[in-house]
Amino acid sequence: MARRHIRLDVQYDGTNYAGFCIQPGVPTIQGEMETALGKLLGEPVHLVAASRTDAGVHALGQVVAFFTERRVPVGRFPQALNDLLPRDIAVVAAAEVPEDFHPRFDAIGKLYTYRILNRPVRSPIICRYAWHVSEPLDLRAMRRAAEALVGEKDFAAFCAAGGAARTTVRNLYRLDLDTNADVIELRLGADGFLYMMARIIVGTLVEVGLGRRHPAEMDEILASRDRRRAGKTAPPEGLCLVRVDY
Amino acid sequence: MARRHIRLDVQYDGTNYAGFCIQPGVPTIQGEMETALGKLLGEPVHLVAASRTDAGVHALGQVVAFFTERRVPVGRFPQALNDLLPRDIAVVAAAEVPEDFHPRFDAIGKLYTYRILNRPVRSPIICRYAWHVSEPLDLRAMRRAAEALVGEKDFAAFCAAGGAARTTVRNLYRLDLDTNADVIELRLGADGFLYMMARIIVGTLVEVGLGRRHPAEMDEILASRDRRRAGKTAPPEGLCLVRVDY
Repeated sequence: MARRHIRLDVQYDGTNYAGFCIQPGVPTIQGEMETALGKLLGEPVHLVAASRTDAGVHALGQVVAFFTERRVPVGRFPQALNDLLPRDIAVVAAAEVPEDFHPRFDAIGKLYTYRILNRPVRSPIICRYAWHVSEPLDLRAMRRAAEALVGEKDFAAFCAAGGAARTTVRNLYRLDLDTNADVIELRLGADGFLYMMARIIVGTLVEVGLGRRHPAEMDEILASRDRRRAGKTAPPEGLCLVRVDY
Repeated sequence: MARRHIRLDVQYDGTNYAGFCIQPGVPTIQGEMETALGKLLGEPVHLVAASRTDAGVHALGQVVAFFTERRVPVGRFPQALNDLLPRDIAVVAAAEVPEDFHPRFDAIGKLYTYRILNRPVRSPIICRYAWHVSEPLDLRAMRRAAEALVGEKDFAAFCAAGGAARTTVRNLYRLDLDTNADVIELRLGADGFLYMMARIIVGTLVEVGLGRRHPAEMDEILASRDRRRAGKTAPPEGLCLVRVDY
């Protein structure tokens, strides 16, 4: 029997998960999804994801794929899986894809958002999906620093140890900041992201916004290729994988 | 030493709480807040709230008050309490109020919102703060039914057993529906709400929106004063106490 290759588009609130990748003894997105798929299909299922999001990171546009020999109509997957999944994970679309489709290797771009709540008092609702920075941020300085990071560059300084990438050169084709009342939203688009790259970029920009660094430092940090020269890693709750492009 | 009366404006994500009111063995908003105040002031504190929100209900504008003999400057309360409170509860303002201020009895009006996600697929992020109704809702019919409920009326049919109100007459001065993409937001303003009143009104309007009831039934339901004539109680996650007016 021919096996089918199914793509699922997935959203999740990452707050209560130790990240996408399955790990023993802790709740993970992959673990919950493979359990639900196993129940639905009556066979063990292995998922491959576009992005191995870290603990606490959210997704509105994660893409995963798996093989199955079962004849479940593809249109039935979202509802059937949502009935089995916890409330904080949802499948929003399903499609049959070619045998050789790979959610990660075939991606030509990814878009993340990072939200910051910038006001003295935190918010129990916004802070679930935003980093609370209580001191005022200088957005103009942050935008100037952001501009210096855009382009095809070596982001070794903005990469935590533990990644498996062969090269640290990435094309960060988009990095802009918008504000809505006291929420700042950064959008980061690249052909790929190194381990912790989005959060180290945001952490560095926030240090610029707080006046602790000058926007002109960005070139030196990039040139150093030294993780210790960049800023602290921003916390996970502000980060959301919005879209994967193929 | 003169005792001071302090008002706090409080926001919370009610998902993980058994409601505002303290109960043994379960997490409650009142329990968390009294614990934090006790730590801060070194004395037991008893809170009075404007609204005893139910399990799973959220708040952006809850008002509470307590007495203390401690000299903590009133402006220090928000930050000091937020450092002690869980992430899903936040104090956004504090003020000294007259001895005879009562958060509940002095309220002349309350505004709630109720959000519905109306589309086939649920959302892990929106559904934390919205009721997911997968079948399409007829908004025009819902608005017509809503109009019939506005005014000073006897809401006995829209009140669950277990409340302590002396009269079931309330002035529902506002009940309107707005939509933003696939999210419907209802705003309910009244001089007071009976036990479960907001959620029974929403549950009834949704039955109208699904075509299971006719908008013209509202008058009969009100006249019956019979809870069994109204619709099912809508789930708590869509409800949020937005503002209390004094």
